[in-house]
Formats: sequence, C-alpha cells, structure tokens
Amino acid sequence: MTLSPTTRSTLGRKRDRAAVDRSDLHAVLDDGLVAHLGFVRDDAPVVLPTAYGRDGDTLYLHGSSGARYLTGDTLPCCVTVTHLDGIVHARALMHFSMNYRSAVVHGDARRVTGDDERLHALRVIVEHLTPGAWDHARRPDRRELAATAVFALDLTEASVKSRSGPPSDDEADVAAGLAWAGVVPLRTVAGPPETAPDLQRHRSVPDHVRDRRHTGG
Amino acid sequence: MTLSPTTRSTLGRKRDRAAVDRSDLHAVLDDGLVAHLGFVRDDAPVVLPTAYGRDGDTLYLHGSSGARYLTGDTLPCCVTVTHLDGIVHARALMHFSMNYRSAVVHGDARRVTGDDERLHALRVIVEHLTPGAWDHARRPDRRELAATAVFALDLTEASVKSRSGPPSDDEADVAAGLAWAGVVPLRTVAGPPETAPDLQRHRSVPDHVRDRRHTGG
Repeated sequence: MTLSPTTRSTLGRKRDRAAVDRSDLHAVLDDGLVAHLGFVRDDAPVVLPTAYGRDGDTLYLHGSSGARYLTGDTLPCCVTVTHLDGIVHARALMHFSMNYRSAVVHGDARRVTGDDERLHALRVIVEHLTPGAWDHARRPDRRELAATAVFALDLTEASVKSRSGPPSDDEADVAAGLAWAGVVPLRTVAGPPETAPDLQRHRSVPDHVRDRRHTGG
Repeated sequence: MTLSPTTRSTLGRKRDRAAVDRSDLHAVLDDGLVAHLGFVRDDAPVVLPTAYGRDGDTLYLHGSSGARYLTGDTLPCCVTVTHLDGIVHARALMHFSMNYRSAVVHGDARRVTGDDERLHALRVIVEHLTPGAWDHARRPDRRELAATAVFALDLTEASVKSRSGPPSDDEADVAAGLAWAGVVPLRTVAGPPETAPDLQRHRSVPDHVRDRRHTGG
C-alpha cells in the first residue's frame, strides 16, 4: 500500500525526499518516542508532545498532555514524529541542512471508550515506550483505566520525508574548495538506569530495561 | 518577566510542571535543534519540523519545510520544542512517564521581508544549528537570500513544562515493593564528523565542528 492518498499528505516541495512505502512510515513511527500532536482550538493551532504507540495501521495517542483540550469524541489532528539524524555542514550557508526522518499523519482521531480497547491501547503505548514493561509492572485497575484518555488515529493519510547523506553544494562551491563540509551524525543514547531512591526490594535492574538498546528521539 | 500571560499559554493540567521564568523558556529553546511548527490550513492542523534560532525574545523560523503553506505575510502558529530526558519506569503502569522539557509558543509569525533582517535571521538560525558556521562557510548572495522564506515569532505568549526525577508511584505500590522502578536517562550525542566524500581541500575538521559538545534533541 502506498502513502499520500490525498492532497495534504502529498509533498509539495522536495518530492525526492518523500517515501512511498507504508513500511517506511511504520519504521519512522516505531523508532520514535515522542510525537507532536497538532490540533485546532479556538481557531488557533496547538502543538503538544505526547506519548504514542502503533498497532498495525492504528496509532494510539496518550491524551494526558492535552487533557483539557481533548474533550470531544473525535479530534481532527496532525501527528508528527521527527528523528534528527545529523547536522549537514555545506560549503555554502544556504545548503546547511539536517539529516532527518519525519512522518506526518493527518486524520480524525477518535476517543477510545471501551475498557478493552483502552487497556489494549495503553499496552501498545507502554510497550512502545519501553518493551517488556507491561509484564513487569502493576497493570491499571478499573479506576485508573477510567481516568485515562486515549485516542486512536488511522494511518490512512500520511507522508514520510527524509534527508540523508552528505551536503548538496553547488558545483562551483565544490570546485572552489571553499570550506570543510560534511555531516555530524546525531543519535539518542540511553545512560545507565537510575534506580528510584525509595526502592526497597527489586533493586537489580531487570533485563528488559538493561538490554534496551533502541532509543529513538 | 513571567510567562503565561494568556489563557492558552496557561497550563490547565499539572501546573506544578510549569516554569514561570523567561530564562527557562530561553534555555529550552536554546537547547533544541528542531521545532515543531503547527498552523492551520483548510481548517485542519498541520505540524512540520523546522529549523529555528532565537535572538532575544524573537524566534526565527526557517520556512522551507512548509514552503507551499507559508504564503501570507503572517502565520498564526504554535511552535513547540521538546527534549526527551528520560523514560520513567514506575511500579504501576499508570505512572510510567517521560522526563522532558518542552516550550510551547503561540502567536502570529510575520514573514521577514527586508534583506537585512533576512540575513540576520539566517545567521541566527545557522548559528543556532551549528555555532561558528557563519564565519566559516560562504554567505548567501542576493539571489539565495531572495529565495529564502524566514518567519519571526515573538516569544510573548509561551509556556514551559517539564518533568524530572524519579517515578511518582502511589504509596501503597511503593510499600508493596512491586517491581523495579527508576529512570533511564536519554541524551542526544554527536558521532565523529563525516567529511564529505567530494571534499578536495580543507579536509581537516574545523574547531567549531570538532569541539561542539552541545547536541540538543
């Protein structure tokens, strides 16, 4: 299945940076930890960071960060996940750039209402954030579950854009050998786990935490 | 000067996570490399990653990524910069969280039209991305400058929110010693600079690139 079925999810600029495979979309989403959720309130845009998780072609969004905005049953929104992979230094300042991957999803998110799907959504979100946690920590009880706002967004209308590789300078600047040019790669890394100071038992770091290598941005 | 002068920039939820000093706002913005720019197009929200830089209480936004949207002289927008500082593992899944810092700025960005301010804005953006570059690489000529879209946004209406420290579990879960709990800290790091393959001269990595330690997310 290809992406970009509508005008707003078809890139207007630098189409060569557009990915067309659904697997690319999934990869960008799966590699991230924070999404930026955009919606309209009182005719003005609002953008808030939020936790999320993907299950097939459904994106589950944790509603807490925008709790007071997210009052309806559906929320027209735009969800963007961006990875910054490097700073691109060119010979000319106009060609300075970033290496990145970003996914932009448009649609009407629906509030998840049933307890079963809400539990499932929370599991997807938590396992996305930190795989293995669902079987390790205490699961939400009925009261906690009722207090949770979760939204579901179909990944129907989406685009993926990326840049990678060395700078793209004008030929004249390359020939002139004006200055150093290249890429400073960036990545997100995890430091040693910091055990909670009030932890009395279970003080050894569990495998699913210790072995986690993935740390998308 | 305190932040949050309007309703929409006053936090509705978890006010204890709100910062009120302008220096906190500046710090979060200065520490980031990518902003998420939200605006409204055809009544629907759009969120795009964009480069930016700060000069006092003016945020300059590079307009390229939303070029076809940014046609007017002003753009009602919301600009959000988020740093993910850690994954918070709690005893209970409901208290899993992220340590983060985020700045949310609301306002009408104005298109920068004069050549002098446009050059200044580009300098601010480039120096934010990679300090020292402006004096190293070739500066934009008249034609390049004319092809650049830059917007300026006043930092008048803004909020800062953050979470740090260990998990906040319910007392009963802490007492029960249910599971490991703690924080996995995250940070963005730069790898060794990758010199462009077509670079003939100036092959040694310059000081301002080699010595850069800061790599916000």
